[in-house]
Amino acid sequence: MTSPEALRRALDGKWRHVREQSRAELAAMDLAYDHALSLDDARSRVLEQLKQLVPTGIPAAGFRRENGGTGDPGMAVTGIEMLAQFDLSLMVKAGVQWGLFGGAIENLGTERHHAMIPDIIDLGLLGCFAMTETGHGSDVQSLETTATFDPATEEFVVHSPTPSSRKDYIGGAASHARVAAVFARLITLGKDHGVHCFVVPIRDENGDDLPGVTTSDCGHKGGLGGVDNGRILFDHVRIPRENLLNRYADVDELGTYSSPIESPGARFFTMIGTLVRGRVSVGGSASAATEVALSIAGRYALQRRQFEGREGEETVLMDYRLHQRRLLPLIATSYAFRFAQNQLVARMHRLQTEPEPDPQQQRELESRAAGLKAMQTEHATRAIQEAREACGGAGYMAENRLTTLKADTDVFTTFEGDNHVLLQLVAKEMLTAYAKEVTGLDPLSMVRFAAESVADIVKERTAAGALIQRLIDARPGGGDEHDLLDRGTQLSLFEDREQHVIETAARRLQRARQEPERSFEIFNEAQDHVLKVGQVHIERVVLEAFTAGIARCEDPEAQELLRDVCSLYALSSIERDKAWFMEHNRLSTERAKQVTVEVNALLEKLRPHTLTLVEGFGVPPSTLNAAMLDT
Amino acid sequence: MTSPEALRRALDGKWRHVREQSRAELAAMDLAYDHALSLDDARSRVLEQLKQLVPTGIPAAGFRRENGGTGDPGMAVTGIEMLAQFDLSLMVKAGVQWGLFGGAIENLGTERHHAMIPDIIDLGLLGCFAMTETGHGSDVQSLETTATFDPATEEFVVHSPTPSSRKDYIGGAASHARVAAVFARLITLGKDHGVHCFVVPIRDENGDDLPGVTTSDCGHKGGLGGVDNGRILFDHVRIPRENLLNRYADVDELGTYSSPIESPGARFFTMIGTLVRGRVSVGGSASAATEVALSIAGRYALQRRQFEGREGEETVLMDYRLHQRRLLPLIATSYAFRFAQNQLVARMHRLQTEPEPDPQQQRELESRAAGLKAMQTEHATRAIQEAREACGGAGYMAENRLTTLKADTDVFTTFEGDNHVLLQLVAKEMLTAYAKEVTGLDPLSMVRFAAESVADIVKERTAAGALIQRLIDARPGGGDEHDLLDRGTQLSLFEDREQHVIETAARRLQRARQEPERSFEIFNEAQDHVLKVGQVHIERVVLEAFTAGIARCEDPEAQELLRDVCSLYALSSIERDKAWFMEHNRLSTERAKQVTVEVNALLEKLRPHTLTLVEGFGVPPSTLNAAMLDT
Repeated sequence: MTSPEALRRALDGKWRHVREQSRAELAAMDLAYDHALSLDDARSRVLEQLKQLVPTGIPAAGFRRENGGTGDPGMAVTGIEMLAQFDLSLMVKAGVQWGLFGGAIENLGTERHHAMIPDIIDLGLLGCFAMTETGHGSDVQSLETTATFDPATEEFVVHSPTPSSRKDYIGGAASHARVAAVFARLITLGKDHGVHCFVVPIRDENGDDLPGVTTSDCGHKGGLGGVDNGRILFDHVRIPRENLLNRYADVDELGTYSSPIESPGARFFTMIGTLVRGRVSVGGSASAATEVALSIAGRYALQRRQFEGREGEETVLMDYRLHQRRLLPLIATSYAFRFAQNQLVARMHRLQTEPEPDPQQQRELESRAAGLKAMQTEHATRAIQEAREACGGAGYMAENRLTTLKADTDVFTTFEGDNHVLLQLVAKEMLTAYAKEVTGLDPLSMVRFAAESVADIVKERTAAGALIQRLIDARPGGGDEHDLLDRGTQLSLFEDREQHVIETAARRLQRARQEPERSFEIFNEAQDHVLKVGQVHIERVVLEAFTAGIARCEDPEAQELLRDVCSLYALSSIERDKAWFMEHNRLSTERAKQVTVEVNALLEKLRPHTLTLVEGFGVPPSTLNAAMLDT
Repeated sequence: MTSPEALRRALDGKWRHVREQSRAELAAMDLAYDHALSLDDARSRVLEQLKQLVPTGIPAAGFRRENGGTGDPGMAVTGIEMLAQFDLSLMVKAGVQWGLFGGAIENLGTERHHAMIPDIIDLGLLGCFAMTETGHGSDVQSLETTATFDPATEEFVVHSPTPSSRKDYIGGAASHARVAAVFARLITLGKDHGVHCFVVPIRDENGDDLPGVTTSDCGHKGGLGGVDNGRILFDHVRIPRENLLNRYADVDELGTYSSPIESPGARFFTMIGTLVRGRVSVGGSASAATEVALSIAGRYALQRRQFEGREGEETVLMDYRLHQRRLLPLIATSYAFRFAQNQLVARMHRLQTEPEPDPQQQRELESRAAGLKAMQTEHATRAIQEAREACGGAGYMAENRLTTLKADTDVFTTFEGDNHVLLQLVAKEMLTAYAKEVTGLDPLSMVRFAAESVADIVKERTAAGALIQRLIDARPGGGDEHDLLDRGTQLSLFEDREQHVIETAARRLQRARQEPERSFEIFNEAQDHVLKVGQVHIERVVLEAFTAGIARCEDPEAQELLRDVCSLYALSSIERDKAWFMEHNRLSTERAKQVTVEVNALLEKLRPHTLTLVEGFGVPPSTLNAAMLDT
């Protein structure tokens, strides 16, 4: 049998040492969520837990050396992800303080703001990230809070002009945060320069609201009871001019606005782009929580017996085909996302530690992070729900943790950008790249061009490009009986689907240019098609990351097992989208049926490895925290 | 525009008066769940609320006149369903006391037990329904608790012989229940006669455990905070012989066992069958909660604007195609289930008020109730999740209720029978009917028979048979452009799928008879196929119920709107299962694409009716209890 240790090594990736450190250190900290606590007590407890994290070095890793950190973004993000294995309230609280608030100060601010960072690291200064408003979430450009420059006093006046401009759902705003990074429209000399970020003190040392600031409490939520989400209203709150986080734009004493980036749109997206770590962390944390849920449900399925099967003995749940169908493809998908996440974190780390990151690569990173966050959190919702149901009544008891994992991760699908918005953002990026190439072509040459070149645009985005291409080139002909198990065949099905979906979406949207007065309708009618561009792009990226991850795995037995897991991911994903493949003549009805046959064969083949596979996730049994599991 | 009142009248069904009564009476009762309460306080509050329900007459409706009730099972079930619109803890608590505990006493007991019923109705006697054990949930026949007759004292000795025989998740067992209806293996004179039900006092008047009884608390759960679920262990607890609920089996003074039903299997299923009301109530309640969630999300989608669309104005969420795609098919499905549920309740009412119910009809009722419960609760999980996500961050706040609806209904997919088990039960019923007809045929004639007669078996089960047949016969040829919108076409697609799935499943399982030593494997490999038999059967039943409901609707405008809603249900359901229809040559790739075109056209057509449609559910805005909604 394959050693779970070898699998874990493959999944742990580059920041394995951080994972190992966290596994040991966090397990000693008593982090399990306690449902018996009141909201106030749960929040205080999480704040105390946060303090315990400071000495681990994870918080400092997120900041540059010159600012008092240790400059290891990969470690910072991996550390957050590991917190998600233990308690998601703590993960969010840490993410808000060090990732979002600290990240805004470091990435949008300059030297004068960076002086705060040591206090941010050691929790001497608690902050919050006041972006979302009651009226605007994913559409950050339309935020309404204003910061109007008053040259008389050289101050910005921060104000909430409407009820919908109230800052809302802000982690830390209900009680703990003393300072807020506030996103507001910068107005100076009568001109609105769009959304910028400002440091605004909101509470005094007694925890009371400062003059002009009114905070309130969001109260109970679907989960995350340890996070004090709240609301903030500003009534003409004055802050010094220097509180503008002025890396990308500044206002001088006279109120003159200046920015190194000419276009307001480009400036806005550059600023937002520096905050990419938030989405990387949310996606990774959703995956970590899913791995915990599948570890619990997988182990339970191996101990629980129900209904008589062979020879008068009750059957272990995992021996049922239906149970295998419910859990194993989800486990395979979690493997796939872990490889993709590791790849994403490595890229992010590289770009964020380069002195001059390439803007094109930065944009690709943002798009990848947005898309993976959407797909990982969607998987989390589906997989944790299935894990809970697969454990029956026991799964509904809080002591078995699954309902808490579900409730806590539930918000991930809509925060840090609504998933549907994010996938359209990914699609926009793909379609823009496509449009760039086809601009100026008449419709006929466009079609011809499409047939020849979309392939290249798609492939440009490939990670381990050469390996993938080799596999695709070496794929067997469609006539082979088990060719669907061939990685090249799977990769080419994914790639071909992506090409076709992009090409046809572009053609539909093209019409909007011809009929500008109907452009909203044309976009709107194609919205599900556009969403699919994002989905299938990410699915390909994930399959390629899995493929590359297998190639890097050094243990031959583990590699062998991973190959089957990867095929299960690929084929069950194709199975879910079978209708598309048939409608577009990519699979005949016979081959479509064969997909299901191969999935079932893989389930049977992987069934004996269930325990090994969940052990591969690297969640120590002692930290699963599910009362029903034999220990 | 269609009047929502006319829609509501169509959906309210036969027990409209009960719905109207509940809408008024329950709204006045302050039933909204309060998250600020501790577990103990939440439970006490729900118990107090339960007392308020007694004067409504709903509790009494569930019991026969001769036992002190008013003999209106339809009213009882509808009343429970209405509770689910207000608070699900209260619904479950009421369901346990009057439906499960009271139902066991009335249906499994005889005169001497029926004397308890007036106390059960007015809550003088609080009981619980102790069926599930830690080791056995859906497999009730394998329960381990024993009730051994001791002729010396003429008592039964109730005992939990193993840790897995502990009664678990029992509503009321943690604190409120004084008496339990305990399911245990009846053993007398050394023989095990299988599972029977016994009345066992568990607490004294101070609420302390009686000698030999050890109760404990399940503590926090995923939701349903107001229900005191608990565990019970019995250590040789003695109860009088008369405490056996002896309608279907008795033991005399000497320990001699007797039963009017010869076969132990038939006896068991007859006993369990009398408890069908539990599943009917759970399915209906899941649907009611879903309607509330969709009412909230639908209304929010009509007020919330996000991202600029036409002419510089932000777009109302509901105007986005994607949002329509997310919500409208779910709303249509909820309409469909309401018609199916009304039909089920009417059947149940008829059978339960007949002096001599037909056993075949009773079996069909049980199967229908099991299948609808599975499909309704699966829909609830999916729809409430989508409703929550469709409301973004606001949807995650407890004050907007969606997360509570999700958490509370979550257990419905696995309690009162795990959905996967229930659908297999439905399939078994279908396959048995099929097998009866084909017994004795050799394989060749079987195939021939199949082609001719499966249709009849399927159709026998049809409600408004003649109408349906007329529509199917009158369907246009496949060549018509919009023929997919024809009800006859839709019905025949559903019916044909069901026939084919049953027929092929039967053929696969047939092999188990030929290779008995591989029978477990053969069944297991076909498990997802068998599950599909259950699903597609229920989907057809639901479409037919919708069709019959439209025919009964008296308002022509409402009828017209309902026709489109029904098509959206049918076509979006076909769209989800498109791959099957293509793989089995029921839809060409062109027609498959046309399904999506028609769904999109229906979305556009129904969009202006969104408010009317959610108003049709009949949840008064004042009781939606979602802070974010404009009122």
